[in-house]
Amino acid sequence: MQESFEVSASGGSYRVVVGRGLLKQIIADNPDALFLIDDYFATLLPVPAERKILVNAAESNKALECMAGIILKLRELGANRATHLVVVGGGVIQDIATFSASIYMRGIRWTYMPSTLLSMADSCIGGKSSINVLGYKNLVGNFYPPKEVVIDVDFAATLDPEMIVGGLFEAGKICYARGYDDFQAYLSDDPGVRMSTDTLQRVLVRSLKTKKWFIETDEFDQKERLLLNFGHTFGHAIEASTHFGVSHGVAVGIGMMVAVEFAKARGWLSQTGLKRTEVLASHVRSLLSLDGRGLVVSPPVIHLDLALEKFDNDKKHLSGVYRMVCPRRDGELELVSEPKNSDVLRDIAFAYENALKAITWEVLPVSGDKIGAGVTPVHPAVQQQM
Amino acid sequence: MQESFEVSASGGSYRVVVGRGLLKQIIADNPDALFLIDDYFATLLPVPAERKILVNAAESNKALECMAGIILKLRELGANRATHLVVVGGGVIQDIATFSASIYMRGIRWTYMPSTLLSMADSCIGGKSSINVLGYKNLVGNFYPPKEVVIDVDFAATLDPEMIVGGLFEAGKICYARGYDDFQAYLSDDPGVRMSTDTLQRVLVRSLKTKKWFIETDEFDQKERLLLNFGHTFGHAIEASTHFGVSHGVAVGIGMMVAVEFAKARGWLSQTGLKRTEVLASHVRSLLSLDGRGLVVSPPVIHLDLALEKFDNDKKHLSGVYRMVCPRRDGELELVSEPKNSDVLRDIAFAYENALKAITWEVLPVSGDKIGAGVTPVHPAVQQQM
Repeated sequence: MQESFEVSASGGSYRVVVGRGLLKQIIADNPDALFLIDDYFATLLPVPAERKILVNAAESNKALECMAGIILKLRELGANRATHLVVVGGGVIQDIATFSASIYMRGIRWTYMPSTLLSMADSCIGGKSSINVLGYKNLVGNFYPPKEVVIDVDFAATLDPEMIVGGLFEAGKICYARGYDDFQAYLSDDPGVRMSTDTLQRVLVRSLKTKKWFIETDEFDQKERLLLNFGHTFGHAIEASTHFGVSHGVAVGIGMMVAVEFAKARGWLSQTGLKRTEVLASHVRSLLSLDGRGLVVSPPVIHLDLALEKFDNDKKHLSGVYRMVCPRRDGELELVSEPKNSDVLRDIAFAYENALKAITWEVLPVSGDKIGAGVTPVHPAVQQQM
Repeated sequence: MQESFEVSASGGSYRVVVGRGLLKQIIADNPDALFLIDDYFATLLPVPAERKILVNAAESNKALECMAGIILKLRELGANRATHLVVVGGGVIQDIATFSASIYMRGIRWTYMPSTLLSMADSCIGGKSSINVLGYKNLVGNFYPPKEVVIDVDFAATLDPEMIVGGLFEAGKICYARGYDDFQAYLSDDPGVRMSTDTLQRVLVRSLKTKKWFIETDEFDQKERLLLNFGHTFGHAIEASTHFGVSHGVAVGIGMMVAVEFAKARGWLSQTGLKRTEVLASHVRSLLSLDGRGLVVSPPVIHLDLALEKFDNDKKHLSGVYRMVCPRRDGELELVSEPKNSDVLRDIAFAYENALKAITWEVLPVSGDKIGAGVTPVHPAVQQQM
């Protein structure tokens, strides 16, 4: 059964619809729309060439240098101020579409159909884009939500277990960030790799309605919404240190475990906090092991030296302090600032080791002098920016 | 004496300050700011190289393809989310700054100091940018007003008569668009090429406070604000047909005269309307002839065939109808739609001829068959987009 709700934004509210068979319907209902589509679905979508822009969803195409090409394509297909652009794809396609739809003739109407569980459960609402510039990751971006988000849960059939697990980690993160009761409710929906389409829809609606609270409370990422970075600062370092061999969603799941271990090492958690964060960590472990029936990714080797370098270079830190979202007291999340000293860095290294060993990933330990001397900055072109 | 007022916008209000000696003050008050400056003022501004980005204010630099270079410069100078960017220059620099400040790390704070009369009197408020893409003029853009607009009227000393006249045409246009009483008030300020700094400040404050009404009523260019296109559709065609040999401001002045002539040819004006529009046209003529003491520009030859082609290709038209802002009845402005037929085109040609002859510019007449057959579209790369 189809469900829908509204999200308020400064530029007007937009509707979110979740259901089955919506892709077919949107193609039938919009005979004049232009389509911007992940080329993975080139043959799946019966849209004629003169109404279709195919984009390869590679990270390298999510770049300011590539935007003129997309804009030119829109121009060649005759896009004008009244054009309705329908976009089908995951996060990279969403970033490209948000940016180009927002600037084309100072902004055209667009509809977004997310095709990955990560984009369905999380990024499809909120309106943010992140765009690379000449090798600097996510150095520019903006806010320009679509007029409508249409989630066809049938897309889930195109996804492999790793993508499903990654999406669930973001969904779980959103619910945990809102409060422990919300996380319990999420768990009661029984999210898992082999969940039915009905279960998936229930999980998505819960995740998005919870995220709706964050973005309506703090549209431009000033306060509450920053808690949604839970797992991201620790996770990005895992992605970057494996040259993105670990996918974003999986890295966020592990990043949440690292944050829990760090909070434990700092002595921040009460007995209740320890119990609650263990429920979260055990959910992550269970999904990564396909509920005990195998492994969702073949464990890579994590070079802790490199991971700590990447962590240190995250642009969300301020000068002199590391900033990250961690559980405190009874497990509630907080944006914490910790001084950049060897004591803190040792606890961070310890937290990475503990979290990774709990999922049986191999860790090459950090050399003692690194922690003593502080980590060395890497070339800015490979830094995390946002 | 310094004057200031606030402009409301969806992203928060911003302050406009008008006075003398403000450039020196802003440099002294912002020892940590980065500066993005028209390179024409490179030596005028005592800001060290490590806090300064110099940009040549050429139309070709106002391009999406050039934005990555500006962003990279910001990164190299260490810009972060907390950076304050002070921008000094005219319209092209404002476009580049609006666009890059809006996307850098999803938006940084900026202050704008307009340096041309056009930007002081008109474009500095409203928050719009217009950016070229691979030869398509103004194909992309966005809305991102500065946090503060600081107008140092001493910049007027750097301007030649053509730039002053162009700025006054935009100021007069804004006041006329608001209503005939506002235009009378503008005239009573005694705007002219040789006005004193006090008079200039009075004209600027009136023009900007009048524009404030339009942008607060219609921030995103949906209705009332469209009246500010008065003179622009007819004027752009003069700019484009002379390969931009006629400057934008001067073209807008002549464009208003053409709009008046067109309204007369269509029989739209009452006796009152005829009198009022003649007051406007006579003001334009008087400024163009430096109040009878010479000519502000050496008259170019206008090829009416080409001007009509450019007019026909303006992107503000819709399929089947020309859209332009014209005076109606008692002289009040309206966005009018006229069918694209030979009758209308003949009146447009007639209006151009009458307006241009009134300022003694040479006009090469249009060939009769062109009007009969409708004009031929030119290559899209030279079309006006916005």
